[in-house]
Amino acid sequence: MDELLQISDFGLSWLDASGGFADIVLSTRVRIARNLQGHAFGPRARVSDREAVLRQVRLTAEKVPTLEGATVAELPKLDGRTRRILLERRLASRELLGDPNTGPARATAVVLAARDPVSVMVNEEDHLRLQGLASGLQLKEVWHLVDRLDEELGQDLSYAYHHEFGFLTSCPTNVGTGVRASVLMHLPGLVLTKEINKVLQGLSQVGLTFRGLYGEGSEVVGNFFQVSNQTTLGRTEEDLVEHLDRTVRQVIQFESQARQVLLRDAAQVTEDKIWRALGLLTYARSLSFEELMNLLSGVRLGVGLKLLPNLRVYTLNKLMIFTQAAHLEQAAGRDLSSAESDAHRAAYVRRILATEGAVEPNEESEAPEGPSVR
Amino acid sequence: MDELLQISDFGLSWLDASGGFADIVLSTRVRIARNLQGHAFGPRARVSDREAVLRQVRLTAEKVPTLEGATVAELPKLDGRTRRILLERRLASRELLGDPNTGPARATAVVLAARDPVSVMVNEEDHLRLQGLASGLQLKEVWHLVDRLDEELGQDLSYAYHHEFGFLTSCPTNVGTGVRASVLMHLPGLVLTKEINKVLQGLSQVGLTFRGLYGEGSEVVGNFFQVSNQTTLGRTEEDLVEHLDRTVRQVIQFESQARQVLLRDAAQVTEDKIWRALGLLTYARSLSFEELMNLLSGVRLGVGLKLLPNLRVYTLNKLMIFTQAAHLEQAAGRDLSSAESDAHRAAYVRRILATEGAVEPNEESEAPEGPSVR
Repeated sequence: MDELLQISDFGLSWLDASGGFADIVLSTRVRIARNLQGHAFGPRARVSDREAVLRQVRLTAEKVPTLEGATVAELPKLDGRTRRILLERRLASRELLGDPNTGPARATAVVLAARDPVSVMVNEEDHLRLQGLASGLQLKEVWHLVDRLDEELGQDLSYAYHHEFGFLTSCPTNVGTGVRASVLMHLPGLVLTKEINKVLQGLSQVGLTFRGLYGEGSEVVGNFFQVSNQTTLGRTEEDLVEHLDRTVRQVIQFESQARQVLLRDAAQVTEDKIWRALGLLTYARSLSFEELMNLLSGVRLGVGLKLLPNLRVYTLNKLMIFTQAAHLEQAAGRDLSSAESDAHRAAYVRRILATEGAVEPNEESEAPEGPSVR
Repeated sequence: MDELLQISDFGLSWLDASGGFADIVLSTRVRIARNLQGHAFGPRARVSDREAVLRQVRLTAEKVPTLEGATVAELPKLDGRTRRILLERRLASRELLGDPNTGPARATAVVLAARDPVSVMVNEEDHLRLQGLASGLQLKEVWHLVDRLDEELGQDLSYAYHHEFGFLTSCPTNVGTGVRASVLMHLPGLVLTKEINKVLQGLSQVGLTFRGLYGEGSEVVGNFFQVSNQTTLGRTEEDLVEHLDRTVRQVIQFESQARQVLLRDAAQVTEDKIWRALGLLTYARSLSFEELMNLLSGVRLGVGLKLLPNLRVYTLNKLMIFTQAAHLEQAAGRDLSSAESDAHRAAYVRRILATEGAVEPNEESEAPEGPSVR
């Protein structure tokens, strides 16, 4: 683990909130699914296929400019906590980690670039899953990063490709470009004004879909939605990315309008909700991750509405990542029971807010003047 | 109102938390019901009876040492908000205030002593209701204050007295001594350990009863219970007071034990509850009175358990009194809608906590060490 932590990015560069619309869009992710000719892929891949793929990736990685100095972390060689940290940083999928009891399958690995926020999962559902992850709305930028890595790898590896269908993938939904682009959005305004369902329906009508924080099958928590393209067939990659970008910008506009509606029609209730969330984060002695996400949602809305000027989006992003169970265990240097985890989470949040996010309870200027008795 | 506010006590001396067991017992109250010979009392009292009583009380008050410099506030001459402030300070009863639409009955008044925390309601259910109110557990002390006032008044006024039944009162439950002594207790330990019902049953077995914060018919809120004697017949006043004092001391012991059980068996949950209550009080932008009472209950428990060393019981007492609706309106200098009242209440709580009760969120020493990542 210690070596992994030395990697400059290690899935964290998006935290800095440097991307566009960072108060509404947390991060942009693009991933490309690729398989290698001459090796069975998906469920039919034998151990020998998988091992051959990993060998080839190792060799190729050494030649590829974007992966110069990259780390190849084989999952079976990592301890369980480190694997969970990879998952919590969205560098590995739940599928790559495998069954918690039996551990990851043979020859599964993650290749982590040294400079750019790109990585490759090896022997997940597909032989290769190239991924780029960056702050805010940066679809074109991230697409170019991952596309470049794809081209570099493709010069050395023979991708399975069908002249009619395009790139072949394990799951038919990925056939074609093999590209899935997704944007993690925070949409409390649309949720609180009850406009969210209309917007989500609109997404599905234009071929987009949404999921929770941890991808497929995960629940929406804290008003965080991952919006992504549904089909990868019959369009160019640039089209997909362009289309998603356009739609996301529209959703951002809807969300901004909804926030203004909240401020106009329900200012007291909204402000109260925001400050209460901050109060609980600042004082609680025990926080489940789910409650934390809901409270962070309230506080993030407050930052977006400029009600909490001292708090930075960077701090909120950090609180999302480092309060996950494996991160807390890593910091504590030991396993934590669920109750311990909740206590450590609350302690971490208190410390971070005290050191880099202190907001005086009476900071807001619009507060009604209180009574002056005694 | 302004003149009334000049009165040194005006029902507030108990706030100072100077009495015994002030973290569990908020206040001690003793009241004595008396009626005057030669005037019908209770529902049969005519306006002429009531006016005669008030006249007599005015004349007598001038001669009585304890009432030297006292203020006689006739309710019909006060504005509605001032009357409600008298109610909120427990100097007037809901019955004395009368129907909110029609206002108080003719010749109703409150006599407020200048030095001692004693007062007299005139023409409530009985002609006279003498009352003493003091901080913490001080049953004998308050009893002596009110008893002295009773004797002083009795030298000038002819009380209705029956050689067999004792002092006659409008309601038969008060006949005899006419004394009701009550103690306002905060019992969160017994509530949280679910021992409270056993204790309350025990009270009724020894002839005691309990009510909510505002007396008869009021609900228990924030774990505040008023414990008082049920019968006033067939015992001496001293017996009544002595008996209540003994029982209350027992309840205090049960409550203290319950608090230790909480700390032993549910420390994390209890501390979390306490700190969350403080967090919400410190940050909320809108608070109903009922929610405030519940949060104050949590914080008061924290002060009792020495988890919040900077906060004084005095501050908590003050927050209970000055956040009541009429007090908030008095401070604002105008009527307040319910939403405005909630906002003013929250603003007042924030200001008081910031100026005299600031507790750093990380003050507690037993907090588990948080992760040290980044």
